[in-house]
Amino acid sequence: MNTMGTDLRITIFGASHGAGVGCVVDGLPPGLRVDTDAIMMEMELRRPGRGLGTKRKELDEPVFLSGVRDGLTTGTPVTIWIENGDVDSSAYERLGNVPRPGHADMPVKVRFPGADLRGGGQWSGRMTAPLVTAGALVRGWLASRGVEVMAYTRSIGRVVDIVDRDMEAITAGRKEPTRAADPAIGERMATEIQAAASDGDSVGGQVQCLCNGLPIGVGEPFFDTLDGELAKAMFAIPGVKAVGVGSGTSAAGMRGSEHNDPYAAADGELICEGNNAGGVLGGLSNGMPVEVTVTFKPTASIAKVQQSVDMSSMEPTELRIGGRHDPCIVPRAVPVVEAMMILVIADLMMRGGMLG
Amino acid sequence: MNTMGTDLRITIFGASHGAGVGCVVDGLPPGLRVDTDAIMMEMELRRPGRGLGTKRKELDEPVFLSGVRDGLTTGTPVTIWIENGDVDSSAYERLGNVPRPGHADMPVKVRFPGADLRGGGQWSGRMTAPLVTAGALVRGWLASRGVEVMAYTRSIGRVVDIVDRDMEAITAGRKEPTRAADPAIGERMATEIQAAASDGDSVGGQVQCLCNGLPIGVGEPFFDTLDGELAKAMFAIPGVKAVGVGSGTSAAGMRGSEHNDPYAAADGELICEGNNAGGVLGGLSNGMPVEVTVTFKPTASIAKVQQSVDMSSMEPTELRIGGRHDPCIVPRAVPVVEAMMILVIADLMMRGGMLG
Amino acid sequence: MNTMGTDLRITIFGASHGAGVGCVVDGLPPGLRVDTDAIMMEMELRRPGRGLGTKRKELDEPVFLSGVRDGLTTGTPVTIWIENGDVDSSAYERLGNVPRPGHADMPVKVRFPGADLRGGGQWSGRMTAPLVTAGALVRGWLASRGVEVMAYTRSIGRVVDIVDRDMEAITAGRKEPTRAADPAIGERMATEIQAAASDGDSVGGQVQCLCNGLPIGVGEPFFDTLDGELAKAMFAIPGVKAVGVGSGTSAAGMRGSEHNDPYAAADGELICEGNNAGGVLGGLSNGMPVEVTVTFKPTASIAKVQQSVDMSSMEPTELRIGGRHDPCIVPRAVPVVEAMMILVIADLMMRGGMLG
Amino acid sequence: MNTMGTDLRITIFGASHGAGVGCVVDGLPPGLRVDTDAIMMEMELRRPGRGLGTKRKELDEPVFLSGVRDGLTTGTPVTIWIENGDVDSSAYERLGNVPRPGHADMPVKVRFPGADLRGGGQWSGRMTAPLVTAGALVRGWLASRGVEVMAYTRSIGRVVDIVDRDMEAITAGRKEPTRAADPAIGERMATEIQAAASDGDSVGGQVQCLCNGLPIGVGEPFFDTLDGELAKAMFAIPGVKAVGVGSGTSAAGMRGSEHNDPYAAADGELICEGNNAGGVLGGLSNGMPVEVTVTFKPTASIAKVQQSVDMSSMEPTELRIGGRHDPCIVPRAVPVVEAMMILVIADLMMRGGMLG
Repeated sequence: MNTMGTDLRITIFGASHGAGVGCVVDGLPPGLRVDTDAIMMEMELRRPGRGLGTKRKELDEPVFLSGVRDGLTTGTPVTIWIENGDVDSSAYERLGNVPRPGHADMPVKVRFPGADLRGGGQWSGRMTAPLVTAGALVRGWLASRGVEVMAYTRSIGRVVDIVDRDMEAITAGRKEPTRAADPAIGERMATEIQAAASDGDSVGGQVQCLCNGLPIGVGEPFFDTLDGELAKAMFAIPGVKAVGVGSGTSAAGMRGSEHNDPYAAADGELICEGNNAGGVLGGLSNGMPVEVTVTFKPTASIAKVQQSVDMSSMEPTELRIGGRHDPCIVPRAVPVVEAMMILVIADLMMRGGMLG
Repeated sequence: MNTMGTDLRITIFGASHGAGVGCVVDGLPPGLRVDTDAIMMEMELRRPGRGLGTKRKELDEPVFLSGVRDGLTTGTPVTIWIENGDVDSSAYERLGNVPRPGHADMPVKVRFPGADLRGGGQWSGRMTAPLVTAGALVRGWLASRGVEVMAYTRSIGRVVDIVDRDMEAITAGRKEPTRAADPAIGERMATEIQAAASDGDSVGGQVQCLCNGLPIGVGEPFFDTLDGELAKAMFAIPGVKAVGVGSGTSAAGMRGSEHNDPYAAADGELICEGNNAGGVLGGLSNGMPVEVTVTFKPTASIAKVQQSVDMSSMEPTELRIGGRHDPCIVPRAVPVVEAMMILVIADLMMRGGMLG
Repeated sequence: MNTMGTDLRITIFGASHGAGVGCVVDGLPPGLRVDTDAIMMEMELRRPGRGLGTKRKELDEPVFLSGVRDGLTTGTPVTIWIENGDVDSSAYERLGNVPRPGHADMPVKVRFPGADLRGGGQWSGRMTAPLVTAGALVRGWLASRGVEVMAYTRSIGRVVDIVDRDMEAITAGRKEPTRAADPAIGERMATEIQAAASDGDSVGGQVQCLCNGLPIGVGEPFFDTLDGELAKAMFAIPGVKAVGVGSGTSAAGMRGSEHNDPYAAADGELICEGNNAGGVLGGLSNGMPVEVTVTFKPTASIAKVQQSVDMSSMEPTELRIGGRHDPCIVPRAVPVVEAMMILVIADLMMRGGMLG
Repeated sequence: MNTMGTDLRITIFGASHGAGVGCVVDGLPPGLRVDTDAIMMEMELRRPGRGLGTKRKELDEPVFLSGVRDGLTTGTPVTIWIENGDVDSSAYERLGNVPRPGHADMPVKVRFPGADLRGGGQWSGRMTAPLVTAGALVRGWLASRGVEVMAYTRSIGRVVDIVDRDMEAITAGRKEPTRAADPAIGERMATEIQAAASDGDSVGGQVQCLCNGLPIGVGEPFFDTLDGELAKAMFAIPGVKAVGVGSGTSAAGMRGSEHNDPYAAADGELICEGNNAGGVLGGLSNGMPVEVTVTFKPTASIAKVQQSVDMSSMEPTELRIGGRHDPCIVPRAVPVVEAMMILVIADLMMRGGMLG
């Protein structure tokens, strides 16, 4: 349903073309500082039109309806509310009964006949705005325990960043419009996006997200594994097609002697030499950086003419989607992936009694 | 915790070197036929030593302690119990405080100091035996609604099957020791496994799992998506490093015009031309085959000498793992992946009121 | 935590002296009519100052932030928001570290040191306002299936209504300030309340709630019984000390031959002669009216001087609670008890596939 | 469903006339001692035929299928299994389609047509055997934190114990066949039971359960209150009709000045003078003994002829229930009430981070 998490629970509500979107964050202790500037910085990273995205003007100024007093959490549920600003439903209404390829329209219409699908309804990237707010709120709590989460654009189209990036490079990438960890690669990624846009097309890509400083043992056996919970959360982000941890799909072609990360002792601490595990063994964090790679498909909304069917007459029809759309959602997805990892990790740390 | 599912709940228990392993299946209606032969066939597919795997003799004959009467479910929880047969803990006990690279030993010891890690304890592939039983039990229920789930080995090491396989080929692959959909590819996969084994090494691979006949709209927005629930379940299987749906990681390099599956009308039914979506749009099934690809790392237990550290002294040490181990778990993982998909799909269909 | 329900989930937020109170209602299908007049009538019944209660002016006009469009639910979460109007925290702030007897102050201060306890914070009767809104919203859905829920004041202080009331009498009681099912008894109840008030004291009482028209078999074995879920929900209402079903505590003194409700056939239907079961057998509804009696303690806030301790100095101190308070919350609790029963029953009907 | 608890989860399975009954206890840490003698003592208290109950011979020797090694918990789920011994289904099978008044037969047949109702199936007091085992297992853990739970028979029929009993008297009552805290009252209770039995009838009663030593603040706002969770658990015990906390139903007739427990300081500790609250304020423990009173109806199975209806023909019929049945389940329910309180309190303490 519309709630994620066990000890830290996020209940999401609203729709793309309703009055607004928001969520309730239940489980936060009293006394956490609500750093409005830090939150707005995250919101800014997700904002459309910032670099290469759509021009829809989203105000994206979250209001805290409950759970915050004098800049501190009170220990009761925090309700985040973000009004929808500039909303024009006419383009969507023109679609009538013609489902857009690559969108959720068709299964939604079949399963939930009365659903409000203007702007994608609840199946819109707009829903990620309150998730980013919630993530930004929880980020400070994790940081106070030395846990840091940061993501960057790993690939866009055929442009792939193959270097293992550290936190410093990733953080620097926050200034890049594409959120690449390297400005030169970022430029090539931007070119890839512009090429797709000028073709009336879109392009996919990958986000890689790291978490440093996690204690050993985060994850709840047998089913609520660290990697499993992360994967489930990532697939809730619109457009995700694959989630890999550490070596990911490349593990398939490897030998065990190559994939196993050997143990070594460094300053009395046990470390792994290498991180094919991506920081997770047996569903538990192993003290190495948690590394998750999330693959996004190209934006489903494209300017090019597409083939569809009018569901009322079952006649084939050509479809041309109007309005402006992101030719690539990957840069804007970076803070969303971060938020999801933050929320999953905080929940699992709470479940393990590690965020008392 | 040790329970998965919402309306169909599996609670797993037991350990590799305890008296046995099992699970409770809660939520099944009364009157489902318990087809012992069909269940034993699935167990046989998971059994070690069948083709290319370990020689540990597992009896794997599940007993139904509760919830079954006269060959039919009673509507109360079904308890599956599988005794552990041939168990020799001496090899594991020799390991002492030296964690095996690629295994969960180290994080388990840190998080759960008193845990029983003989044979991997609860972090053992042995735990998948009751899951396969549960899946086999539920398979018949789904089949009665026209829903069929079948998987095959997509790749082992560098041998990759690049053809889109249909149910017929996949079903035929049940006779192949490697569970390949094509005997010729299966032979090459077997060679790949034997090469790793003769090097005292192991090799990874991929399982692809399909589900045909699913109604449109299976999945619970916003967070309990079809793809997200499948991914979480797959990551609970020991050794999984990546889960992709449809186009998977290749979506990153694609254009929208290429990735969007166009709609067409066929015999008054709406269909997609192409299945990059892998049967899932917006977290809901779209009527096309659900297609999930699961990447397994090479078996962590290898005969080769490995580097580790004695956690009591924090001194580096060489580690040589005795006993026999699967040089590749992928063929045996095929029925496990099927079972997980069956259990997830049955749960989501129940949640959506589609398995009344 | 702050969520109740499984298939119909209510997540509550806000506090007595914050910006407002509200809840998210998740699980409603699209297309339910939102009858604002009916909702306002329920809110009016809960409103302080209406008959014999406090004079605090609560606006209590719920706003639907999400999930409602053109007067119909959309199928996504409905967010209810009720602004807090007339709030003066000075009386509460004068209390400092002196816990009020009968209130939650002390355990809250110990468990949640930073909690906002102004006006009782989250431990205030104010939190029941959004529950009444949610209940009123769901009431219409149940009514469309012939399920009706109605409560009345069973006792106040020593004035007890010992007649078994039917729906007609109970509904008529909605006009009585005390919510008694009989005007003459209502007058005696009012006198009982006024006597307590003029002594600077308060008085307790009982609410009896009936549900007619429920299908047979509502309730989820083994633990999520109809009576158990009702009881848990009722105890979440501030001030509840006991919950009884049917015969309730009087069952203790009865013989089996007297307590068992005999079966009879009437017009081809199986009925019970008598309803000591209160409509519940084995945790399942049995087709007879569900009858729950909820006991409320006298309001903890009284004008009389009370003994307490200053928790900062651990010195005994006399406490005089200022402000105006209900001398008896029972009449205002009637719609709250109804709302809780409505929400529990709708959830269990959904779980049982009876509210498709 | 068949699982209770959040952090400590009990999943119950089996049926009265199946192979056995049992449960999975998930969430226990490794290293808890499994005191077989203490467990058998609890089982003995629940055993039929011990004092005044049925003569059905139940072996009731729980086996631990998983989660226990060398007398200690391993941290993985503990599976409790109790074989059903002396089972004769013929009496039940003679009932055919005639539902027994006061039993769950009728709603079960309507809701779950294929259910196995021999011996009450899953609606049998037999299901409480594994709950008592689980409670006995957890009791030692609570005791190690100074938390003690003990219950006694408060009333049987018209014989009521009106004295507030302390732990010493209650513990002594374990030797009484009726589980009365006072031998003289116990004798009168036994007479009450025998009188009912010799009339071919049964009689109800009350169990009062106390918990000493609980830390302040146990309970999870807003909905998962200490009293609410206790009430829900108690209603899962077959035959319960009412649950009261502290003053219980008598609160209805009281004034606030009488009901509020005044605060006092004793040796630098804040205490309440009086315990009308029953140890719970605002759904949180307040440091005073938690006191819950549970009302049981008279046993539904009586020897006297009763009126019922044959559901296949809808013809009225007389019903005479054969076999031996407890004329009063209250004494045997005492350890069950204790077990439920233990399980609820351990779960809530874990949720509050108080059982690390």
